Amino acid sequence: MLENLKEKVYQANRKLVDEKLVILTWGNASAFDKDTKLVVIKPSGVSYATMKAEDMVIVDLDGNIIEGKYKPSSDTPTHLEIYRAWGDVIGGVVHTHSTHATAWAQSGIDIPIQGTTHADYFYGDIPCLGVLTQSEVEDNYEHFTGVKIISEFTKRKINIVEIQACLLTGHGPFTWGSTVDKAVENSIVLEEIAKMGLHTLQLNNTIKLPQYILDKHYLRKHGKNAYYGQ
Amino acid sequence: MLENLKEKVYQANRKLVDEKLVILTWGNASAFDKDTKLVVIKPSGVSYATMKAEDMVIVDLDGNIIEGKYKPSSDTPTHLEIYRAWGDVIGGVVHTHSTHATAWAQSGIDIPIQGTTHADYFYGDIPCLGVLTQSEVEDNYEHFTGVKIISEFTKRKINIVEIQACLLTGHGPFTWGSTVDKAVENSIVLEEIAKMGLHTLQLNNTIKLPQYILDKHYLRKHGKNAYYGQ
Amino acid sequence: MLENLKEKVYQANRKLVDEKLVILTWGNASAFDKDTKLVVIKPSGVSYATMKAEDMVIVDLDGNIIEGKYKPSSDTPTHLEIYRAWGDVIGGVVHTHSTHATAWAQSGIDIPIQGTTHADYFYGDIPCLGVLTQSEVEDNYEHFTGVKIISEFTKRKINIVEIQACLLTGHGPFTWGSTVDKAVENSIVLEEIAKMGLHTLQLNNTIKLPQYILDKHYLRKHGKNAYYGQ
Amino acid sequence: MLENLKEKVYQANRKLVDEKLVILTWGNASAFDKDTKLVVIKPSGVSYATMKAEDMVIVDLDGNIIEGKYKPSSDTPTHLEIYRAWGDVIGGVVHTHSTHATAWAQSGIDIPIQGTTHADYFYGDIPCLGVLTQSEVEDNYEHFTGVKIISEFTKRKINIVEIQACLLTGHGPFTWGSTVDKAVENSIVLEEIAKMGLHTLQLNNTIKLPQYILDKHYLRKHGKNAYYGQ
Repeated sequence: MLENLKEKVYQANRKLVDEKLVILTWGNASAFDKDTKLVVIKPSGVSYATMKAEDMVIVDLDGNIIEGKYKPSSDTPTHLEIYRAWGDVIGGVVHTHSTHATAWAQSGIDIPIQGTTHADYFYGDIPCLGVLTQSEVEDNYEHFTGVKIISEFTKRKINIVEIQACLLTGHGPFTWGSTVDKAVENSIVLEEIAKMGLHTLQLNNTIKLPQYILDKHYLRKHGKNAYYGQ
Repeated sequence: MLENLKEKVYQANRKLVDEKLVILTWGNASAFDKDTKLVVIKPSGVSYATMKAEDMVIVDLDGNIIEGKYKPSSDTPTHLEIYRAWGDVIGGVVHTHSTHATAWAQSGIDIPIQGTTHADYFYGDIPCLGVLTQSEVEDNYEHFTGVKIISEFTKRKINIVEIQACLLTGHGPFTWGSTVDKAVENSIVLEEIAKMGLHTLQLNNTIKLPQYILDKHYLRKHGKNAYYGQ
Repeated sequence: MLENLKEKVYQANRKLVDEKLVILTWGNASAFDKDTKLVVIKPSGVSYATMKAEDMVIVDLDGNIIEGKYKPSSDTPTHLEIYRAWGDVIGGVVHTHSTHATAWAQSGIDIPIQGTTHADYFYGDIPCLGVLTQSEVEDNYEHFTGVKIISEFTKRKINIVEIQACLLTGHGPFTWGSTVDKAVENSIVLEEIAKMGLHTLQLNNTIKLPQYILDKHYLRKHGKNAYYGQ
Repeated sequence: MLENLKEKVYQANRKLVDEKLVILTWGNASAFDKDTKLVVIKPSGVSYATMKAEDMVIVDLDGNIIEGKYKPSSDTPTHLEIYRAWGDVIGGVVHTHSTHATAWAQSGIDIPIQGTTHADYFYGDIPCLGVLTQSEVEDNYEHFTGVKIISEFTKRKINIVEIQACLLTGHGPFTWGSTVDKAVENSIVLEEIAKMGLHTLQLNNTIKLPQYILDKHYLRKHGKNAYYGQ
């Protein structure tokens, strides 16, 4: 089933390692098939060195394993919650512990929009979401992680297509996109702007990018009249 | 047309990736042919993995596409403005979002001359140019970016042959040179001195390189009596 | 003798270099064979470029060379002391001078638990142990380094299975594990959390990971009801 | 002439690039042949990509070219001054602009002895030598750079065998050793301790390594009763 998507999810997980966003087994990428409402996700704790496309696990939106000899990623309930809420507009989710994005997550503060590299991809600050409550963690940690992402985006009125990334305080980044490849690309960009952002702060920056430049850069790539690319 | 130059521009764009100055498609290198007054530039948003020399786009100084199946880089109007103003002395322009140079650009401050690595290539501080006005951005952003570079170098009386680089506040670096290869080399050097400069500040440096050492290092490589190299 | 274990120890020492945790000859990995009570360890100061599995040295717990044409690592007495105290629960020990973990060691402070990357592997802060006394250093430095590790873990009531790593002030990290492979993995993780931890501090973090999230992350991988992995 | 030594000097210069201590052409390694009193050194500004062992230049201690089709490194007078003063105990000299060592040089402060990684190679702080006077720079810059190194080591009573490295304020590091290979190794170590040292300061370290640990580590590798290595 879904052989093409399994190959894509496998390649996406490999790319996270190649781009040095994931070390050991600290990451997971999944894709959502809109037709069948099924999710393809990396198996839990399997070494990237030996992992194959056929090892990807297929689950339904309730978390039932539909195909696969392995257990799915332990973060699967987070992915499922995101697809249940936003599956009409997104097709891929990625979680990593990439170094600089994780440092920002550990610091508990949003990554401010400091430049056009950020503006080219994300239409505003990257929100750092607060920690779960003790009862959420103890009851169903990975599920409530997804709930937290959705509820905070709703509460803060952040458009999930305009800001396809967030940080979880004390944990690390999640990104998403129209496809799993786009979600991986967002993880690459997020790590780079996290790194640039740290160095910018170290140079004692108090400047924030003007709104009209944010508008220009975001909209020349993503707006109605976008003219970047072919 | 200009097959040799297309190959050089292609190789220059590849080198930006190999040197890790460009990730994804965040950069562009161009060359100016003094005889024909034509510019060869990278196509917009084409993956480096599949890009070929023949994909380079040829435009005239008014931005008309003379040859090429792709749209040129969205930053083409900036390159054109630079060649229109300085095309008698420069033959290549490069734009990147290299990590440390971009952090300095985001911080909105000049890179001070702190050492001889800098002095070997640039005869003074690397200027960080202010942001465009809202009307410039909304009217013709990439064109006015070029206008800004030229007007600020003129206003600050900076010799564009002696300082072949600048930062655009909130954006990133531009470099140039007598050839596109030289412009790429300047981008490599700029990123390295941006990195060294950040670390120097972190060590609480208050020293600035004496003028007579700047003179010595710059002039032993670039002066009338230069004795560096063969 | 112990050919399999010599191969494993050799591969572990190579991996430290491949992972860039060791430059030149600055590290050593050993394994303990519970049946024979023998230790397999890297020879002292031999280049990794030419080192072979058969060059590993076998010593008994008193430090007598049982097999091998080379002298064992100069840090062997530290490894032996650790196996004498904890050999019933651990099977491998690793010492490196990895960049960021060593910076923390040189700063003389514990690595605080700042996030789930840390919590996934270590159940609390990584202790930075004080310096040896002058007489300990002059009398038998490497032996008392081992004594220090054991006595400080005892004094601070740290469970050596829950925290399989420490820093020695002014020196660098030691890690251990059920096997030499696990000890190497702990060295990889320690370096990464040391790096993330530095960057987190640079972002002015004052947040500490709540105990209930530490519990959740550590226990979902290592607890009785662990559900991470296959 | 001196074919073996030319090969060694060539390999040393290549290794500086492979170890990422040198980018573009920013470094030079030389060796001194005690029998003939000749120096073998890299040619000036020749690309590492095309450089061959036979391109190395042989000069005598007065700077006369004895063999070679290229001009020697522009820093040759510095190397010669060092060999004239210390040629009885050293056989190789290396100059780089390696990132972190150069940042310390640009900050104008000594690299303090903060840990055993440093102590294993250098018996004390790495001195950062003051800038030359304007007349020294204008008269004979590279020659007086060598004079400065020798006179400051003499004035500060630093043993040039115990501390085989220094920083030149606003410029970068020089290292030396009994052979050119040892000088390269010292450059590798210097860059690493410069990096660790920066990060240690960032963690707000006020600790300095006790003298008795410095003694122990330096002397177990380099003292009369050294027991490190085979």
